[in-house]
Order: sequence, then C-alpha cells, then structure tokens
Amino acid sequence: MSSSHDPTKQNAIDMTNARAATSIEVADVRKFLNGGPLLWDRRKKIVTILSNDPVFDKSLRAFHSRQEQFLRGEAISNRLYELQELHKWSQEDMTIALSVMDEPLPIASHNITFKPVLELQASTELRSKYAAMTASKGILGCYLQTELGHGSNLSCLETTATYLPQTQEFELHSPTLTSTKWWSGALGKTATHGIIQAKLILPGEKDMGPHLFFVQLRSLETHETLPGRTLGDVGQPDTLCGWASTDNGFARFDHVRIPKENMLSKFAGVSDAGEYVTPPHAKMSFSGLIYFRSLMVTNAGWLIAKAATVSIRYATVRRQGEIGPDGLERQIITYPSVHVRIIPLLARAFVYLELGRALTRRVDELTRDLSVGDTTQLAELHHMVSGLKVLVSTTGIQDLETARRSMGGHGYSAFAGLGKLYADFLPAATYEGENSILEQQVVRAALKTFRSLSTPRPASLSGTSSYLCLIRDKALVPPKATADTWAKPEAAISLLEWRASLLVQEMANTTTTPDPSITQRVSRAITEAFVAARVGELIAALDSAFKPRAVAVVRKVYLLYLLTTLESALVDLLSLGLIIATVETATHNPTRGLRLAVARLCKELLPEAIGLSDAFGFSDWELDSALGVYDGRVYEALWAKAQQEPLNRTDVTEAYEVSIKPLLLRGQKIAGAKL
Amino acid sequence: MSSSHDPTKQNAIDMTNARAATSIEVADVRKFLNGGPLLWDRRKKIVTILSNDPVFDKSLRAFHSRQEQFLRGEAISNRLYELQELHKWSQEDMTIALSVMDEPLPIASHNITFKPVLELQASTELRSKYAAMTASKGILGCYLQTELGHGSNLSCLETTATYLPQTQEFELHSPTLTSTKWWSGALGKTATHGIIQAKLILPGEKDMGPHLFFVQLRSLETHETLPGRTLGDVGQPDTLCGWASTDNGFARFDHVRIPKENMLSKFAGVSDAGEYVTPPHAKMSFSGLIYFRSLMVTNAGWLIAKAATVSIRYATVRRQGEIGPDGLERQIITYPSVHVRIIPLLARAFVYLELGRALTRRVDELTRDLSVGDTTQLAELHHMVSGLKVLVSTTGIQDLETARRSMGGHGYSAFAGLGKLYADFLPAATYEGENSILEQQVVRAALKTFRSLSTPRPASLSGTSSYLCLIRDKALVPPKATADTWAKPEAAISLLEWRASLLVQEMANTTTTPDPSITQRVSRAITEAFVAARVGELIAALDSAFKPRAVAVVRKVYLLYLLTTLESALVDLLSLGLIIATVETATHNPTRGLRLAVARLCKELLPEAIGLSDAFGFSDWELDSALGVYDGRVYEALWAKAQQEPLNRTDVTEAYEVSIKPLLLRGQKIAGAKL
Repeated sequence: MSSSHDPTKQNAIDMTNARAATSIEVADVRKFLNGGPLLWDRRKKIVTILSNDPVFDKSLRAFHSRQEQFLRGEAISNRLYELQELHKWSQEDMTIALSVMDEPLPIASHNITFKPVLELQASTELRSKYAAMTASKGILGCYLQTELGHGSNLSCLETTATYLPQTQEFELHSPTLTSTKWWSGALGKTATHGIIQAKLILPGEKDMGPHLFFVQLRSLETHETLPGRTLGDVGQPDTLCGWASTDNGFARFDHVRIPKENMLSKFAGVSDAGEYVTPPHAKMSFSGLIYFRSLMVTNAGWLIAKAATVSIRYATVRRQGEIGPDGLERQIITYPSVHVRIIPLLARAFVYLELGRALTRRVDELTRDLSVGDTTQLAELHHMVSGLKVLVSTTGIQDLETARRSMGGHGYSAFAGLGKLYADFLPAATYEGENSILEQQVVRAALKTFRSLSTPRPASLSGTSSYLCLIRDKALVPPKATADTWAKPEAAISLLEWRASLLVQEMANTTTTPDPSITQRVSRAITEAFVAARVGELIAALDSAFKPRAVAVVRKVYLLYLLTTLESALVDLLSLGLIIATVETATHNPTRGLRLAVARLCKELLPEAIGLSDAFGFSDWELDSALGVYDGRVYEALWAKAQQEPLNRTDVTEAYEVSIKPLLLRGQKIAGAKL
Repeated sequence: MSSSHDPTKQNAIDMTNARAATSIEVADVRKFLNGGPLLWDRRKKIVTILSNDPVFDKSLRAFHSRQEQFLRGEAISNRLYELQELHKWSQEDMTIALSVMDEPLPIASHNITFKPVLELQASTELRSKYAAMTASKGILGCYLQTELGHGSNLSCLETTATYLPQTQEFELHSPTLTSTKWWSGALGKTATHGIIQAKLILPGEKDMGPHLFFVQLRSLETHETLPGRTLGDVGQPDTLCGWASTDNGFARFDHVRIPKENMLSKFAGVSDAGEYVTPPHAKMSFSGLIYFRSLMVTNAGWLIAKAATVSIRYATVRRQGEIGPDGLERQIITYPSVHVRIIPLLARAFVYLELGRALTRRVDELTRDLSVGDTTQLAELHHMVSGLKVLVSTTGIQDLETARRSMGGHGYSAFAGLGKLYADFLPAATYEGENSILEQQVVRAALKTFRSLSTPRPASLSGTSSYLCLIRDKALVPPKATADTWAKPEAAISLLEWRASLLVQEMANTTTTPDPSITQRVSRAITEAFVAARVGELIAALDSAFKPRAVAVVRKVYLLYLLTTLESALVDLLSLGLIIATVETATHNPTRGLRLAVARLCKELLPEAIGLSDAFGFSDWELDSALGVYDGRVYEALWAKAQQEPLNRTDVTEAYEVSIKPLLLRGQKIAGAKL
C-alpha cells in the first residue's frame, strides 16, 4: 500500500469510477422504477421542498429522546398539510410526500385505517356528517382493535357495545383490564376520534360478535380526554427504539354512550327495536385490510431499495482485506461473499416495486367493483395480498438486516441509517394481520382449490392458483433441473410452480399428521410461484420498457430474483425430488450449479450495481445514511456525525465526579499507589 | 367463553398449573445448570444484594435517554466495586456479579481486553509497574484496534508508532482521518489508559507491521484529555439503541511520545538501537482473543436461557385463537407452530451452558500451559473457539429474535425485555473477530488437515477434526437415514459428522470454482459436528448428574438439540445424499420424519417447559420483562409499565398547541365546519 495513499480521498475516486462503469441509461431506469417521468418529476420537486424545510431536517434525530421524536412526528404531520395548502399539492402529491417520510407518523392511522374504514363501512348518514372533516383533518382518527389480552381472534374481544333501545344509543364498555384497547397508532395523544371494534350486545344479552363503532375520544375545544375514556401512550413503543415518533396508545371505556348512528352499519345494522340486520356480503369488511396490505408491497420495495443503495455504495468505497492489483486493499464489493449478499437486494426491490404498482391498480379496480356490489375479484385479491404481505414483510426484514450486516462494524452505527428502518419495519410481520394467521388463510384457500380438482366441478385456476395446473394435468411431469435450468427464467418459474403444487399435494395428503412448519412453507411456496409468474411477465415486457443495454441488464436482475428464490427454496426442491441428489453425487453436489449461477449473475451485475441503485433516485436526505452518501465520502460523514453526539459537548463527562473518580480513587487506595 | 372469566386472574392460574405439571426436580437441575450448589448459592446471594440496591433498579430504564443510560452504566460500574469492598466479594463473586448485569458496562473493556492483554503481553517491567493499579481499577483501560477506515486486516492499520533511538521513545501518530481509532469501548469518556495497535516503524522507515503499545489518555488528576490526543464518543453507538450504557469512542494522536518500555514486548521487542527482536511464538498473541471468545459461549447460553424463559412463560399464560376443552382460548404454547419454535431454545441454552463451562476449563489449562511456554493446545483451541464464537453469535441472535417474535404484538414492546438483549448482543457477530474472517480460519485449518490425510504423514485427528475419521477410514459408508435415526443421538451425531466430512471433501475438490457460501457452510458444519460429539458425551454422563426422572427429560432436551441442528442442516444433508429424495418420494417427503420427530419431542417436553426454564434460576429482576414475570401476571405488569411512560404525565400533550391544534383548525377551516 502506497504510504501517500489517502483513503478519504480514495472514497470519492472509487465512487466516481463505479458510477462511470455503469452501462445502462440510469435516467431511463429511474423513470421506470418511479412509475414514469411525471411521477419521478413530482417526487424530485417534493423532495427538494421537504429537504430544504427545517421541520424535516434529520441531522440531529439520531440523538433525540423518545419525547423529542414524538414532538417531531407531530410537527412533521402538521407541516406536511401546511405545505400542501401552500404549494397546492394534489392528493397524489401528498401520497408522494407521505411515502418519502421515513418516520411512522401519528397521521398515518388516520389516513391508512380510520379514513378508508369510515368511507367503506359507515352508513350514508354517518359518512356525510364526517367525510369532509375526515378528508381535511378537521378531526384526527385512529382505529381501535387489538386489546391488551386479545389479538387476532376478533370473536374473543371483550370490549362491549350494548344497544339500549330506550335511548337509541350504544354503551361502550371495557369490562376488564385485558379488554383495554392497546397498540393503536395515534390513540395515545393525537386522535380526537376513533373507530372501535366491540362486541355488539343486543337486548336479551345476545352477543352478535365484533362490529365497528365511531366514537369521539378527545374534546375538539381543549383536546382533553372526554369523560368515561381513559387514554394514554403504551410506552416506548418498540423494543428496538422503532416507532418512537408515533403515539401507540391504550384506551378504556367506562359505560360511554354513543348515538345509534355511530355504528358503522353499511353492511350490518341494528333496527331501532334492537334486531340485527344481516349483511348481504360478509366478506365486504375484508376490503379495507386488502388496501392496507397492498400498500406494504410497494413500501417493502422502497425499503429494500434503500438497503441496497446504502450497502452497495458503502461496499463500493470500503476497502478491506487482501491487497488488490491497484496496490490497495480490495473494495469489499469485489468479494463474492459480500456481493452475493447485497446484489440480490436490487433484484427484490425491482420486483416488489413493479408488483406493488400492479397490485395498487388491481385494488383500485376492486374498490370500483365493490362500490357497485361486484365481489367477484374479492376472494382472489384477498388471498393474493395476504400471501404477499407475509412474503414482503419476511423478506424485507431479512434484506434490511443482510444489508446492515454486510457493512461490518460501521453497520452497527446509528449513522448507518438502516437500523432505524429495520426497527420501524419489524412490526410489519405482526400488524395488519399476523403473518401466521395470514399463512393459514392462504393455505386453506389453496387446499380447497386443490381438493376441488378431483371433483366433478373443479375450481377454475387463475392468478394465485394457476400453478395447480401442473397437478391437474396429469400428463405433465416435473422437469429435471440441469445446468441450463439456471439460465432460463421459464425453467426457474416452472420449478417454483412445481414446488408449490407438490407441497400443496403433500399437505393435502398428510392433514392428519401435519408437520408444524408445513403451513408456513406451503404459503411461501404458493406466493413465490405467483410472484415468479409475474416476473416472467415483466421479463416478456422488457423490450418495450427499456433501451437494449438496459434490457439486457434488467433481464439479469429479474433472473437473479428467480434464482435466489430457488436458492432459498432448496430444502423443498431437494426433498420433493425436483433437484436430485444421491450418495454418488456427494462429490457432485447438485446444488452447486444453482449457487454458481447466482454467483455468476451477481458478478456480471457488479459493474452496474451503482447505476442500478442510483436508479431508485434517493437523495442523501431521503437515505439519511453516513455510509450511503451519494459522493462516497463515508468517513468524513461518519466523523461529522460523531462530533454532534451530546456526550462530546464536554471533554470530562459529568459521570466523572459521580462515578469514575470514586472508582479510580478506591482502586488507587487499594493498590497503595498513585501514578 | 364464559363471560365471568377474567383473563387477568387466569394468568396466575395457568402459571401455577404449568409449574405443578413439571415432573423433574427443578432445584437439582438448577444447581447443575449453575455449575453446582455452591455457585448457585453465591449467585442467589449476589442477585439479592444487587436487586435490592437502588443503583441497579431497572424500573425506569426503558424511558432513559442515551445520556441517562450512560450515566447509569458508569454508576453501576462504580457501585459494583464498592459492593465488592463492602461484602468482601472474591474474584469469583465479582465474575458472577458482572455476569448477571444485562448492560454493556464501560468497565468491561478494562476487564475483558485491557487487563488480560497487559498481563499476557507486557514485559515484566511494564507489568510490575501497572499490574496492581490495573487489578484494583486505579487506572481504567481500553483497547484501541479498529480504525475508522480499517477493520480486520491489521496489516493495513494506519496509526504509527515510530521508534526514536535518540530519546528511546515511540511517537504515536494518526496520519489521516481514516486512521482514527474507532468503536473502542470506554475510550470515549471513561478510560485513563489504553493499549493500542499501531504499525511499528523502525529507523530507516522500516514498517514492522502492527504491534501493541501502552499509552495514557487522560489525566489521573482531572480526567482531562492529555495533550496530543483527541478523544470522543462515536455517537449513539448502536443502530437499534443497544450499547447506550457504554462509551464506544474514537481517538486521534498527534505525535504523542511514550517511553520505550510502553511497547508490549513480551513476545516482540525493539533494541535500544532500534533493531527488531523476533518473537519466539508468533501465535502467542492469539491467546487473548481465545479468552474473550470462550466467554461468549457461556454468555450466549445465558442469553438464550433468558429468551427461552420469557417466551415460554408468556406462551403459557397468553391465550389466543381456538376455544379449547376448558371453554377458553387455547394457551398459545399448546400450538405446535409456537412450541416447536421456543422449546428448542431450552435445548440450545442447556448445551451452550455446559459447552461454555468445559471451554473455560480448557482455556484455563491453556493459560497455565502458555505461562510455561507450552503451545501444543494453542492451535486446536484457537480453531475451536473461533468456530464456536461464530456458531453461538449466529444462533444466539436468531434465538432471541425467534423468542421475541413468538410473542406476537406484545413482543415488540420495550417492556418485553428481549429487544434490549438482542440489540446489545447483535454486534457479537462482528466484535472479537468478524464472523466471516473466523469462518475462513476454521475452514483453512480443516482443509489442511483433510489434505494431510492422503499424504504419508497424516495429521492426527482429535477434538475439532475427529469427524474426519469418517473420510480417512475408507471402509466407512454414510448411514441411511431411517425413522430410527431420529430417536438415536448417536445416529444424529453420525449424520452431522458425515455432513462435515463430505462438505470439507467437496470444498477441497472445488477450490478452483468455490461457491460463495461454501466457507460459511463448511465452518458451520465442522463446528456443529464438534458440538454434536460433545452432546453425545453429555448424554453419556447424564446418569451421574441427575435423578432418573430428570435424566429422561434432559436426555430429550439434548436429543432435541441434535435434531433441530439436523433440521437446520437439511439443505446439506439432502444435497450430499445423506437423506435421499427421488421424484417418487414426492408423496413421501423424506424430511417429514425428522420434522415430525422434532414436533413429537417438543410436545413431550411441553409439560416440563416451565420447570426447565425455572431451572435457569432467573429472578424477575434479572429478566426485567413484563412478559416473563415468574407469577405469570403479564397484563398487570404491562399496564403498570405503560403508566410510567413520560408522555403520560399530562393528558394533553405539549404537541397539541404547537402541531395538533393548527392541523385540526386548518382542517376545520377547509371543511368549512365545526363539529
């Protein structure tokens, strides 16, 4: 290593060189990933406004206490709508502005749960009374479902809403400690109103199970808690310091009366006399959840894109280990053990972003269908988003952690930026439907379809169940994986579809003695087969989306997605006989071909890695990562951040007089010496 | 569900019943796990003292800011040694007291790195000058190795120690920003002295590579930073809020002179004239790291034990989902999807605790050997602890996260207690040797031994390499896994040894085209084969350790360890042909037998789960988890914790006037309405 070499300057040189090596037209790919030139343009304008506004400054947030983070979350919520008025942002602009926020905001509950549920399930009267105020944030809402003692089994919720025919009111009540509503975002300190899940009790103590009610929580004059309610924050909400910017709250109700019209009665109501009015479509209430979950696919795509951008940039400028041909330590991204971990994140981000966009279109169509009473797409979309929600939350969490760990020691620094994203995203495995519950729903639907195939009236196969064709058409036999398989998207897709089919078949044949992980594996296999088929469609459409050089590169990105999915499915592929091993193959491990194909693809994509991650279009403000800065000068960024640490305001810490000095003096006395 | 049922009271009933169901003598197992009745007795006494001392109170720490956590860490460090003096605790007592602390303490760097390295590597003169002060904490030390721009490749460190023959001094210097020492525990605000890795430069600009030097950092009079040093805290040290109680620091040196005697010169020195004196045993410097890493095995055992205790207790009292035979929702621990995840944690904790104890004995022996110049055990123990460090840090992180996620929504609460353990343990994958570097060392040693087998002078096989007998003795053929295999420890051990052998062979045969994950997989396979053989020995010794009922139960615990290890190794076992699948087996998945065996064992251990976790002996103070309280009253504990959240001190938050009110008023104006 040359002694005149300065690693700090080398950072910028390495980044410039890597950027120059990219062969694709980054601007084109960026427009594609952002949903077209118009949307990219809007995002850029909005990000410029936000990043220059002091309310959105991130430079000190790593040092904020929980309270400071919460106050900042509220200030951001307010300022966003102030800016909307100021700049006359459309609804779509606001969606973009909210989507580039990397904090869970108190306003999110209002937008993502309260408002859609009110719109979809309130009676016309209730809606017309509150729709304008809800849209304009004249009231702020939250959604109260989970209780301290009760989670996903809604039928066991304890909160009651008892109908009183005399006064035409419902009485909301929390009979026990465990019936306390718990975890609801914005419930603690922000929301003025809530929509609450409570057991509807009709005259004669008839328990009709959980229903939704609209209830005011705080005064619109003073913001004080209204009588009969006990409200509060559940406390430093996340174990890893996530979600500090929002007030997940608790609520108890002591015989609180609300008018009869406050029941959300579009699909189920109570007559004045107290008789239950049956809903025409019980499943209609699912569609709210479908909306929330579909958003998570795009959200996971952007998160993984951030993780990919930060880790690829850092690995490009970080040099460590062996001395390379330039006489310097090698850039760590050149080690296969590093790049096979982080290049696949690019692939997952590309796939999830496109998948999310397609899903949003499907859900918009569904919403239109439902508004005219057409429920034909409801079940299919419900299972699709359930499986996808599990997949993207599981892989998103893994990818964030993979990216962080790939950065070695500095990856642990709060200034690396990925830890906060991880902590904020982690609960995604539980909220909006616990993953294990959703898996059961996905699998149950698949088993039903599978069983119908041997009946006189087989279900028609499409979308999430089309892989079952392989089982239905008995003439088809599973392919043999060969070296060729790893170069052909269609072969990879076929293997993933066979895996799903054979696993569903195995599960159907072993229902009396299921192994405890089969539900999880079957759900994942079904969803991955579905996504793989969509990736096949994306590949087929590549020529119309990109110029030739980018087509070749993005094709590799999509193929890498398929191959890494296969790699994570190896136990299934091997145990189902889709990849064959024998004792004799011990010297010719049949999984080597796949692993080498992944390694080869990653290596081929290496010169494009910076270009592909630049194509996501993140500004330094959006990433807020000392390790992911655009210019690559990571060490200067880390140093500058550390200087702001509050402990560094004084040379001698206040712990000295209180604790360190007594410890030293005692030690010196014991040693009988003074140096 | 009966309407008179009170889930709060049910918590305590469920816990009492579960405790009564245990068949083993908990007290006996507890003594065993704690290393005998004497050590258990000491731990109990020490925990009683600590948990009644206000300095060690944990009731508000979830709400502490970084600064408050740091001040608490310093106060705890001081108080521990004050208590040592007060209660006349022995060194062994202090080891226990430090081991029950669940905070990374500033004093840890002094005890775990500074002191041992000084003792082992300093010259007699330097040692005699500082030994007493180091032992008594009259000075406080830290260890400066990693630099801002440089990690595990020590030869590329930039900090220099230039020998000046004229004055018989070394001049320490940080030539660049990237040479800044970074991450060292206690360096920021606590340590008065440090041992620093720096490139030794001899006259004529001869670069002799990294060596260790002793340097004072802060004044012993005022605690101010001495001239020529720039010291500080690297900032909120962990991305997930871990390590807040310690001051990971940075340091730069501007031509700081230290006397020649300050070089740690037991194994390598410089003559007065500036000539290098070659070390007799270059590897001697490894032995410090061996000591740190061996501690991590026991540490991981206790951490997993905590995760097991908390998750098993919560799953015992949490009821959710289906209505069971008692008319209540089922205890979640009764679901196979839950208990197959958390019961195996018991097994891993049992194994690691015993393994750690045996390892500590081996390392103590090694230390004695080394002090008389005997290095025969050094290489073997170095590879053993390297592999084990990787294994226990990897599985420990996974197990903590598995336990936390098994607890559903409440698992995300800071009051669940496991998140803090996770955040504090996560860096274990990187510190004291980055895992991927250690894996390379383990694998390199194995390949060397393997290749020697076909030479006229084959290496002797023992300990970490004994599994290679299978390859050496050509007559042996791999076993066929049958239903029986999953009931017999020896069969499971044999499969794990065959896997290690065949993978090493595969790697040796494919060095020209290695797949990128093979180093990781081979290292893991070797270490798991080694641990499996030790578990075989533990099983053989069971009859002498326990009464008959406990023997039967603990035997199942150890077998469960082996089977879950096999399950996590399925890709290898299948692809190496140790478990055979064919297309025809698609309806008879060959991995089902293993999965069902794991499920069966977990189910059989279910009635013992509370007893086995009680046997670790944790007090509520040690666990500090609302979900893991001994009496099972988890909801009351969560409620009580939430009431202490600082945001709950006022009903109306201070964010109301600043942010929420403007947002509401603007919305009401836009909607043109006031409710």
